[in-house]
Order: sequence, then C-alpha cells, then structure tokens
Amino acid sequence: MNYGMILYILCWVLQFEALFLTLPAACSWIYHEACGNSFLIVAAFAYVVGFVGTRKKPSSNVFYAKEGFVTVCLSWILLSLVGALPFFISGEIPNFTNALFETISGFTTTGATILGNVEGLSYSMRFWRSFTHWIGGMGVLVFLMAVLPLAGGYNMHLMRAEAPGPNVGKLVPRIKETAKILYGIYIVLTMFEIAALLFAGMNMYESINLSFATLGTGGFGILNSSIASYSTTVKIIITIFMVLASLNFNVYYMIMVRKPKAALKCEEMRWHLIILGLSILFMTINIRHMFPNIKDALVEAAFQGASIMSSTGFATTDFNLWPEFSKAILVILMIIGASAGSTGGGIKVSRVITIAKALKKELSYIVHPRSIKKLSLEGHSIPHETLRSINAFVICYGFFVFISLLIISLDNFDFTTNFTAIIACLNNIGPGIGGVGPMETFDKFSDMSKYTLMFNMLAGRLELFPMLVLFSPSTWRSR
Amino acid sequence: MNYGMILYILCWVLQFEALFLTLPAACSWIYHEACGNSFLIVAAFAYVVGFVGTRKKPSSNVFYAKEGFVTVCLSWILLSLVGALPFFISGEIPNFTNALFETISGFTTTGATILGNVEGLSYSMRFWRSFTHWIGGMGVLVFLMAVLPLAGGYNMHLMRAEAPGPNVGKLVPRIKETAKILYGIYIVLTMFEIAALLFAGMNMYESINLSFATLGTGGFGILNSSIASYSTTVKIIITIFMVLASLNFNVYYMIMVRKPKAALKCEEMRWHLIILGLSILFMTINIRHMFPNIKDALVEAAFQGASIMSSTGFATTDFNLWPEFSKAILVILMIIGASAGSTGGGIKVSRVITIAKALKKELSYIVHPRSIKKLSLEGHSIPHETLRSINAFVICYGFFVFISLLIISLDNFDFTTNFTAIIACLNNIGPGIGGVGPMETFDKFSDMSKYTLMFNMLAGRLELFPMLVLFSPSTWRSR
Repeated sequence: MNYGMILYILCWVLQFEALFLTLPAACSWIYHEACGNSFLIVAAFAYVVGFVGTRKKPSSNVFYAKEGFVTVCLSWILLSLVGALPFFISGEIPNFTNALFETISGFTTTGATILGNVEGLSYSMRFWRSFTHWIGGMGVLVFLMAVLPLAGGYNMHLMRAEAPGPNVGKLVPRIKETAKILYGIYIVLTMFEIAALLFAGMNMYESINLSFATLGTGGFGILNSSIASYSTTVKIIITIFMVLASLNFNVYYMIMVRKPKAALKCEEMRWHLIILGLSILFMTINIRHMFPNIKDALVEAAFQGASIMSSTGFATTDFNLWPEFSKAILVILMIIGASAGSTGGGIKVSRVITIAKALKKELSYIVHPRSIKKLSLEGHSIPHETLRSINAFVICYGFFVFISLLIISLDNFDFTTNFTAIIACLNNIGPGIGGVGPMETFDKFSDMSKYTLMFNMLAGRLELFPMLVLFSPSTWRSR
Repeated sequence: MNYGMILYILCWVLQFEALFLTLPAACSWIYHEACGNSFLIVAAFAYVVGFVGTRKKPSSNVFYAKEGFVTVCLSWILLSLVGALPFFISGEIPNFTNALFETISGFTTTGATILGNVEGLSYSMRFWRSFTHWIGGMGVLVFLMAVLPLAGGYNMHLMRAEAPGPNVGKLVPRIKETAKILYGIYIVLTMFEIAALLFAGMNMYESINLSFATLGTGGFGILNSSIASYSTTVKIIITIFMVLASLNFNVYYMIMVRKPKAALKCEEMRWHLIILGLSILFMTINIRHMFPNIKDALVEAAFQGASIMSSTGFATTDFNLWPEFSKAILVILMIIGASAGSTGGGIKVSRVITIAKALKKELSYIVHPRSIKKLSLEGHSIPHETLRSINAFVICYGFFVFISLLIISLDNFDFTTNFTAIIACLNNIGPGIGGVGPMETFDKFSDMSKYTLMFNMLAGRLELFPMLVLFSPSTWRSR
C-alpha cells in the first residue's frame, strides 16, 4: 500500500475543500451572517494541513486499483468530516453525528435530512448544503484530476473508483481531458438551469441552490416544503433538469462533438426514458383521482418519477399518501436508479439491462442448449469479466440491504420504514416511505442506525466495492 | 416439442393422483363423512383419463431439458387443478379460485391459506390438505420415476426440473434408484415423526397430519391455532423434524451407507445450522422480555426460526407482535430458505454460500488482480456454468419479486403485507408479516393477486426457470 501517495492526494482534497468553503463564507458576507467565521476557520485549518502535506511529492508512483479504492473512500470520509465542522462549530446543527449525517447526505447527493426545520438554518449554511450536492455529484477526485497537474496510472484507478457505472467510458484517450469535459458539461447544464429558474421568476439565491441540488441529483431543498410551494413552471423546469442530470453524460458529449445520431442510439438512455415514461404513465392513471385534473396529476407523477429515478429526492407532495401501486413503482425506481455516467445513484440502468439480457440468454440456453449468443450493450459485446462484476455488484447490494436491515431494525420502527430508509440511503435518493417519507426526517433513528445509514450512503455513492475494499482485512495485509 | 411424451407423462400423473385421492376417501369412510364421494368421483375421473392416455407409449423418445421443464410445470398445474376439485365439489371451499389457491399452496408446500376457520373443514378434507404437502415435498415426478418402469434420458431432465437446488446430486448412478432412496428416507423420517408424536400423547389423526405437513415443510395445521395449543414436547419434536426436513438429504444417504464423517463434513449442512443457530440465539435474546423465562423464549425462537428457515410456516405464536429485529431475521431466513436437496424452499443455503464466495473472490480480485482462486463447494470446484446459472437464478428471483409487487400493490394493502406475501409465497413459507402474518389469511386479496401468488408458489417450488420456460415464446417456436 502506497501510504505516501494516498496521504498526498488526501492533502490535495483538503486544499480543495478549503477552496470550496470560501463560497459559503462569501455567501455569509452577502447576507451579513455571523456564521461565516466557522467556514473561514475550517477553511484555514484545511488549507494549512493540506498545504503542508503537498509540499513534497511522494517518491513512489506505485498505484494500483487497491490504492485507488482506498484513496477515494478516505477522501470522501475526510471531505465529510471536515465539511461537517461548520454546521457543528456554528451551533446550527449542535449534534456532531447529525452534522456528519447531513454532510455525508450532501456530498453523496442523497438528500436525506435530520432537520425538521430547514428554514431555521442560515442562508450560508443552506448554501453549503446545496453546494455539497454539486461537489459530490460529479465527484471531487474527478475535479482534482481535471485541474491538477498530476499524471500517471493512478488517474484511471481513481476515476474508476469514483465515477458511477459498471464501465467508466473514457470520452477521450486522456483521463485528464475526460474529467475536464465532464465538468464542462456539468457547469453548462447548471448554468442553463439557473438561467431557466431566474427566467421563471425565482431569485438568484434560490435558483443557484436548487440548481446545485438538481444537477448533483441531491435533493436538499431550502424550504421546509421542499419544492411543493413553487409554481408549476418551476416544477417542470426542475423535472427536466433532474432527467438531464440522470442520463449518461456520454450522450451530451456525443451532441457536443456533433454526433447527434450516436447520441440518440444510446441504448441506456432509451431504456432509461422508456422505464421513466411508463412509470409516469401508470402513476398518472393511478393518482388521477387525487387531483382536480389530469394535467396536475401528470405534473406530480412526472416530478416524483424523475425525482426518484434520478435519485434526487425532491418532493412536491407527500407520496406517502399515494396508492400502494404508485409507491411500489417508486420503490422499484429507487432500486433501478439513474444511468451510469450520470450524477445519479442506484444500481444503474445499464446494469439492469445487462442482467436482464444475461437472464434472457440463460433461459434461451436452457431451451436451445446448442445456441450460442453474445451479450452486447451499446453495440459492443459485454466481456465476461464485466458481467461477473455486475453480478457481484447486485449480490453485494443485496447483502448490504440485509445486514443494514438487521442493524436498523434494532430501533424497532416498522419494516416499511427500515427497508425504504436503507434503499433511500444506499441509492442516494433521500426520502423513503413510511417513517422516512418526504415529510419526515431521519432524526428519529439512533446513532448506531445513523452511522449505518451514513455507511450506506457512502457505499452507494462509491458503488459498494471501494468501501468493502477499505474494510477488507486482506487489503491491509502486506504480502 | 415432443407433445406425445408430455401427454403420456401427464396421464401417468393423473393416474397417480387418482391413487393419492383414495387415501382421503378412506379417511372419510373412517370418520363417516359424506364428502368422501367427491374424492371418489374425482379419482375415478382422473384414473379413466389417465388410463386411456397411457395405453399407447409415444413413438418418439426425444426428450430434452425443454421438454423436462414443460412437463414438470404442466404436471404441477394439472395436479393442482384436479386436486382442487374435491374442495370445490364438496362445497367445503365453495369458491374455485380459493380451492385452487389452497391446493397449490398445499402441493408447493407453501402453507398459505385462505381459510379463516380451518376447523370448519371435515377430517378428510384436512387430511387431503396435509397429504398434498407430503406429495409435493419430495415431488410427484420423483415418485413417478421411483415406481414406474420408465427409462431413458428424460429421467434426468425431469429430476433436474423438479428437485430443488442448483445441482441435482445423483446419489447413485441410476436416477430411478436415486428417486427410490430419496423416497425411502422421506418415508422413514415421516414414520419416525408419527411415532414421536404418538409417544408424546397425540392421537393418530393429528400425528399423521402434522408429520405430513412437517416433512413436506408445508405448514398447514389442523387447528385454527396452528401449533400454539400443543405441549412443549410436541413443539420440540416438530422443531427437530422441521430442521431434519430442511437439510440436504444427501446427509442421510451418507449416514445410511455408513459414512458419518462425510455427512458431518457437508458444507451446506454446517452453514445451514450456523445460520439457524445464530438466528435462534439473537431472537431468543430479543424476545426474552416477552416470556416468563428464558427456556420459553428459546423454545419459541427455535420453533419459529426452524419453521421459517425450513419454509414450513407453522406458527406457535403471532410473531407479528415480536420486535422488528426478530422480524427482520425471519424475513432474511425466508429469503435464504432451506438446503438444496431437501423438501424446503427459498433461494437455498448452497446458492447463498456460492454467491457469497463469488463475491469474496471478486473483491480479492480487485485487491490482488493477479491472484487466481478457484471457487469450491463441498470440496468440488464450482463450474463456471453453475455459477452463471446461480447468478441468473438470484436475479430472476429479484425480477419475480418486483413484478409481483407491482401487481399485488393494486389491492392497496401496505408495503410490508405486499412484500412479505410475495416472499412467503415465492419461498413456499406460508405466513408473512403484517396483513399476512401467522394469525391472518390470504383471503383478503383480489383474484388477480391470488393468481399472481399461485404463480409465485409454483415458480418458487420449481425454482423459477421451469415456469419461465413454460411461458417463454421461444419454447413453443418450432425451429
């Protein structure tokens, strides 16, 4: 294990976090809020430690997948621990466990909250909450790679450990350039949403915050009522951008390089839109009687469908009160999740397509044992190793759910609450059903359950394996 | 598709069912019940049709896996349709959907009931219910193979489609002999339980019925209170036999041929007992406060743990009222299920071990990419194809749960009820949690949900693929 290099990268992460923290500090200056100091103190501390730690480049360049996974996990844990300090120091979230829960929920773009009264937070704290979503959405190490003059084999290992999806598509041969393009698309989409929301009559503070939370597929709102009190136009704008944030960013790159046909052919995007479209259709029919007209039902169904499938978790209405059929659709959308290569969470559409294809192949093998069929996705055949890894992923997912279920059940809430709390955290959604529905908070859980859910949020954002590698004894055994 | 051979085997199944139906008819004669006629009418009808259909052996012997799967599915559906007739004709279950539900639940050894008042049924009808468990436990085609003078390649295909577990172990080179040995063990265990229950002071009728339901891991009781009103001795006897029925029968064969060491080394049995033992331990601690002393808590925890893991589903107490931690353990035991090669349901312990090992291998591959490890179970390396098929099985299992969840949710019961109803049917357990808890019935569901659950019971008993093959268009397409 190359401890020197891991420490070096962690110190860079600290420096970047110091930089990020200056934004909410600036926000507090604009709103004349005293809590700005807590951001500055933490930023100064992070910068000094980070600066000292990056003075000397480590001698060894040895960096394997193992190091990549460990570095990414530790970066996210460090980022969260430091990011929680302003909430805690300022006293706005006086309990450190809660502050950490909120921060991990922010960075992992989950959006699960322990706050009953979000509006009780200052402007700059709410800005920091939204901003953590934006940073976490595309990934902090992807950012680091885009801007730092680093080179070497570890780029690929870091990218692979942090970026979502079974196959990390390099858009261009160099990882550094790929990272830049991804952040470029991300920034442009964010600016488009800010502009659209301003145009719809929202003020600058609200539109920036909501755009950060939308594009990162996070889901922290700035009002207690989440999105419910906004106009239909705003709801439609946010719906569109939630969908955009949850599609495979390759599609936008294809459009950027003027290959719109290739973009339209993206198999994952098509299935994503088919699943979402059908879900919205069925939910609209199912909830029709709860609304004065079909248009309102459609807007709500589309918003909730997009919000849950993109793993954002914004709410316009308490879907806890919807019929069970619509709730079942939402639970299934939670588990499927967004497309790979997006900022969303979940198992990912491409993995679901792949396992469905593998199942179909297995059946046809039973019926026609001598038939030979190749599995393919996006026109490329799926390597045996990818399929094996996807199978392991899905199975690992199941194990995480069951083990977490056992721990959380000790708090003695009902099965629906426990099960959907885990699903909502592991898939980085935010709200679940029952006691963790859109109008409820996660504050009711014991500390042990909260730490279990934090673990799930990080494991979900980093796609399970990195966290397992971090906690696997064989990783730390020297050979 | 060799229709001639399929029809021929189906007609044999009918003849055997006629034979089986004479037993409850005899029971009605003993108890002077008029409903005996309905058994005799159905038996006569089944025998005549079966007799006519088996006069001429089909010319073609072509019989592949496809034919095996289709034959087994159709046999079970036919068995259930005919087996439901006595309930319906006698008027004891006047609704045919309910009669079919009860019969499928019986043959698949699920034990889910639509009857609120079991004691309202006549003796012979309750006997028929218990007897369907016993027939379905080991499998009707296994029985057919054991006694019929059939030979040919189709034996293996039928056995593979009907017997539970990822690998059908032939105990001896000839399938016919294997089938005989399995039924032999089954009959001996049944007789031991009958003797033990008689010894504990139970009457003959009760001990036969309960032994049938225990050894088949079914779970239909003959009293409204299931097992709750019996003595502690009876509960302990039933607990022991539920565990015995859910272990891999290979173990008994090993003991039979005087290889006790080989029996003790059985990896699946060890893991089965470890999982069950830990579950009982944790549940005992968790429910301790609900009972006057620790012994009572242990007896209840052991009974429920064994009942659920073996997929029997007998109840001595309403575990709906237990703390959520114990309920979470029970839900997880439901999904894991019994050992392969037993009469129990669920994903099966050997599959769970295999996927856990595959996951561990995948992780060690990430950490040490150049390491080469072989997966092995019971001392044999697991072929690539077996692992692929197990992965497909687990994924298929997930798809079945989600699609069923969507359909059943239309009835608008709560999530816990819907989810555990499906798990309880798909794993052939019987009771679930919430609205399908041990003191509730499945009568509340709509007909559509009942048929969905019947499908799940059959799919679970036959281990998913056969039902998929039956309903897959490519099976019926001529090439």
